[in-house]
Amino acid sequence: MPDTNRQWLLTDRPHGQPTLDAFELVEEPVPEPGPKEVLLKTLWMSVDPYMRGRMRATDSYADYWELDEPMRCHLVGEVVESKHPDWEPGDIATERLQWAEYNVVDGHDLDRIDPDLAPLSTFVGVLGMPGRTAYFGLLEVGEPKPGETVVVSGAAGAVGSVVGQIAKINGCRVVGTAGSDEKVDWLTDELGFDDAINYKETDDYVAALEAACPDGIDVYFDNVGGAITDAVFEHLNEFARVVICGQIALYNLEEQPTGPRKFRMVNTHRLRIQGFIVGDFSNRNEEAMARLGGWVTNGDIQYRETVTEGFERAPEALIGLFEGENIGKQVVHVADVED
Amino acid sequence: MPDTNRQWLLTDRPHGQPTLDAFELVEEPVPEPGPKEVLLKTLWMSVDPYMRGRMRATDSYADYWELDEPMRCHLVGEVVESKHPDWEPGDIATERLQWAEYNVVDGHDLDRIDPDLAPLSTFVGVLGMPGRTAYFGLLEVGEPKPGETVVVSGAAGAVGSVVGQIAKINGCRVVGTAGSDEKVDWLTDELGFDDAINYKETDDYVAALEAACPDGIDVYFDNVGGAITDAVFEHLNEFARVVICGQIALYNLEEQPTGPRKFRMVNTHRLRIQGFIVGDFSNRNEEAMARLGGWVTNGDIQYRETVTEGFERAPEALIGLFEGENIGKQVVHVADVED
Repeated sequence: MPDTNRQWLLTDRPHGQPTLDAFELVEEPVPEPGPKEVLLKTLWMSVDPYMRGRMRATDSYADYWELDEPMRCHLVGEVVESKHPDWEPGDIATERLQWAEYNVVDGHDLDRIDPDLAPLSTFVGVLGMPGRTAYFGLLEVGEPKPGETVVVSGAAGAVGSVVGQIAKINGCRVVGTAGSDEKVDWLTDELGFDDAINYKETDDYVAALEAACPDGIDVYFDNVGGAITDAVFEHLNEFARVVICGQIALYNLEEQPTGPRKFRMVNTHRLRIQGFIVGDFSNRNEEAMARLGGWVTNGDIQYRETVTEGFERAPEALIGLFEGENIGKQVVHVADVED
Repeated sequence: MPDTNRQWLLTDRPHGQPTLDAFELVEEPVPEPGPKEVLLKTLWMSVDPYMRGRMRATDSYADYWELDEPMRCHLVGEVVESKHPDWEPGDIATERLQWAEYNVVDGHDLDRIDPDLAPLSTFVGVLGMPGRTAYFGLLEVGEPKPGETVVVSGAAGAVGSVVGQIAKINGCRVVGTAGSDEKVDWLTDELGFDDAINYKETDDYVAALEAACPDGIDVYFDNVGGAITDAVFEHLNEFARVVICGQIALYNLEEQPTGPRKFRMVNTHRLRIQGFIVGDFSNRNEEAMARLGGWVTNGDIQYRETVTEGFERAPEALIGLFEGENIGKQVVHVADVED
């Protein structure tokens, strides 16, 4: 085992799109586990759009990141040393921990992973937080019914791609928006979306959505916000549900963005617009894992990952999310399981 | 019985604030009831903010008003001639009918009123559509819990004044916004609101709401929209419910209004923003009537009416709504019960 532990710190609060200047790679000694603790070696790290909010010193549902402290992420790791009776070296686990090659953590807080069930990286993707986000957000907040039309923005991302496939499993017509022809082709040719719109090549979102959604839109799962969302509202049916999962198009804006006021239509169309975070449903994680696992196993849900190689490139991977560089789940490959 | 029946027609689609030019008073012969029909003499007419939407030739939850045709309103009338077995002259009834001194209507469509229960005008107010709107909108969409803070905009109107009092009955802290000191005094001194804000005399809505809502806002019942609503959003608690009942501040705007985008906060605070119309709950009208009637009888709900005298002044009464001239329910007194 090496005696240095690399960590990524947030050293500046970015304005607009984050750049590499905001992060600093430092080396510390590998920490020693205390009683009931384990030392976990990072194998796979997750970078996710919500992290942009943690860089901002404003209150939200979770604490923001302090400057000059390690950032946090969901990761998959291997136990390399254990002082907790439930864990032994070689065990695989997942938890939200520091952006670091090694973390010390209370063994009670770790979630065990069965490495025979699926590739380890999926436990921060389709079988992890993004998959659960799609599952609870669509089914519990969006409440799609068979035959309804579901539109997903950011459809080629880790959450959106699973949302669309769960909507298909539930008998819906599914239309996605994404930012490249490659993404659009993946959605329609491989994931079974009924239609998909490359918003970067579309001048008139309203017309494109009208063509793709001849019966209007009953559920809108919004990862993006902004102009695409405005266009979707032009086609929402009465009693439509709008699930606000993310607003990535707005995350890098420094000023409060403005747009069309929507509440007259909320009234006349009896819309329901509702936000959620995946943690609101954490008491049902096992249910979500079981169902998502079943769908992945039987092929109803396919997934794709964009892999960035190397712990030292984690900030690049995060920045890439805001430029739409990922298809499917963006992960960082840090290390392999020890022999 | 006179042989002429005065009617108000919509003859122009107003731009911005409606003016009297948009309406025309015409005389027709009093219509003759056919089989199963009754002739109803109008006693009290209701004018309501939603009517602004009917003047616009755009699709909504209800058909818009055709030009050169009579407009429609909720009214209370007296049966003066009946060819329906359930009705006889002298009976009192309510229904949504034409802006006319006399209407012919299928007896099956009329709702009977017990004139001993409450003053007749209340059946288009606290015991009519506005009262039911408050009842269902607050309880079914807003879901207030005891101890929560409820803010109502347009609080001195027909709906808002009832919303606030039902929230008080349910053990909430209640704060209203209204447009005059007289209205504010009525809310706090007579209706039991915990606080009220005269928005016309307030420069900083955000600060005023912060002072009035020290624990934040859990339910916002919005009749108004625009800047007041933007300020309320600054104080919404996590899992707050926003009931979109009306947006009267926007009804006379010809251009699509813009304002701060709110969906990031919908996500982080897990807000639920939901629109409704009273007709969505029409299968529960009897329940609402029974409960509202009980509260009015025992004094838990007080009401006030602004009465415009004379059928010929009905358009004035409607226009006045958009200038905030009414306190409580705006009604038009057309005639008294025949001796």
